[in-house]
Amino acid sequence: MAKILINFAHPALEKSRVHAQLVPAVKSIPGITFNDLYENYPDLDINVQREQKLLANHDIILLQHPFYWYSAPAIVKQWIDLVLEHGWAYGHTGKALKGKTFGNIISVGGSEHSYSKEGHHGHDIHDFLLPFRQTAKLCNMQYAAPFVVFGVHKKEFEDIREYSRQLTEVLGRMQSADFDASALPGLAYLNQLLQLPAQTQQ
Amino acid sequence: MAKILINFAHPALEKSRVHAQLVPAVKSIPGITFNDLYENYPDLDINVQREQKLLANHDIILLQHPFYWYSAPAIVKQWIDLVLEHGWAYGHTGKALKGKTFGNIISVGGSEHSYSKEGHHGHDIHDFLLPFRQTAKLCNMQYAAPFVVFGVHKKEFEDIREYSRQLTEVLGRMQSADFDASALPGLAYLNQLLQLPAQTQQ
Repeated sequence: MAKILINFAHPALEKSRVHAQLVPAVKSIPGITFNDLYENYPDLDINVQREQKLLANHDIILLQHPFYWYSAPAIVKQWIDLVLEHGWAYGHTGKALKGKTFGNIISVGGSEHSYSKEGHHGHDIHDFLLPFRQTAKLCNMQYAAPFVVFGVHKKEFEDIREYSRQLTEVLGRMQSADFDASALPGLAYLNQLLQLPAQTQQ
Repeated sequence: MAKILINFAHPALEKSRVHAQLVPAVKSIPGITFNDLYENYPDLDINVQREQKLLANHDIILLQHPFYWYSAPAIVKQWIDLVLEHGWAYGHTGKALKGKTFGNIISVGGSEHSYSKEGHHGHDIHDFLLPFRQTAKLCNMQYAAPFVVFGVHKKEFEDIREYSRQLTEVLGRMQSADFDASALPGLAYLNQLLQLPAQTQQ
């Protein structure tokens, strides 16, 4: 069974609508390690050894966060800058993360259309996530398609509950022993994992 | 004369080769405000009011930093997350930055070729800078082409001195009263500003 680590980052969870629902759903899945970065490091003072040990002990690493200024909240960058050390995570001798899967679980204010060439943000969400995709690649990890909740400001409680259900199911499938990770790069969004015939037959 | 603000971020300037030369060069230019983020906020505890006041008082805002993990060091993201508040920097009533110029001055480990489709990083440096470009746009600012020092690990002291000289000249031109900011979007790199006929005639 694949071991999943969720590195969660939300500087104001008490004000959140989406993550307030996603977090309990994710936490309720047996066998998933939920690592709340702001709770553990309110001063952004990351314990590098602890974080590297966590990474080494898991197969799938997902960053769960709101999409702040076309990226993750600052603590995620702090975590990347400090934890993914040269010689450990990348470089000739840095193979600690080789073969693992890396991805984002994000909530986004704008609609999916707003993240398109014609839309308000002028570019696809995948274009903005390029630094994460390439970070995964440099560390010899496979980047999974992102799990995205678009248009969070207009979402009803019931809609968010549906996303929580989806995410729970997606993570459950990724955990399962016969999950085929090679299907991931073919997806635009991780949400679509549930539509894959090979996966739904399980 | 345009007022330039440099927000500088390097978590380990004592180990830097490029910025160790660029910083004194930049600081020596009369009329430029040099704002060292890590020096002012070693705990990443940004004074939002101070930073907003600085922004309001300048016409050109440049982020100077090494390119860490395809982006800026964490403190720059912290600064963006906290300082560019809704209703102040963006949104219907957020017009404090309207018409200003925004950009990056970066040092990059890889060569310019490594930042291409065929190269090691598989994408152009401009693709990785997209979150900064779009952040500028959302705040009604014009994004300037980035000033880039590629291949820093292999650069000789003399090469870096040449970049310092270039940067000093570029900033001097941007300050000058008759500088035409509409030339900026046509450049791939801010370094090329010196080659523009209209600018070199000054």
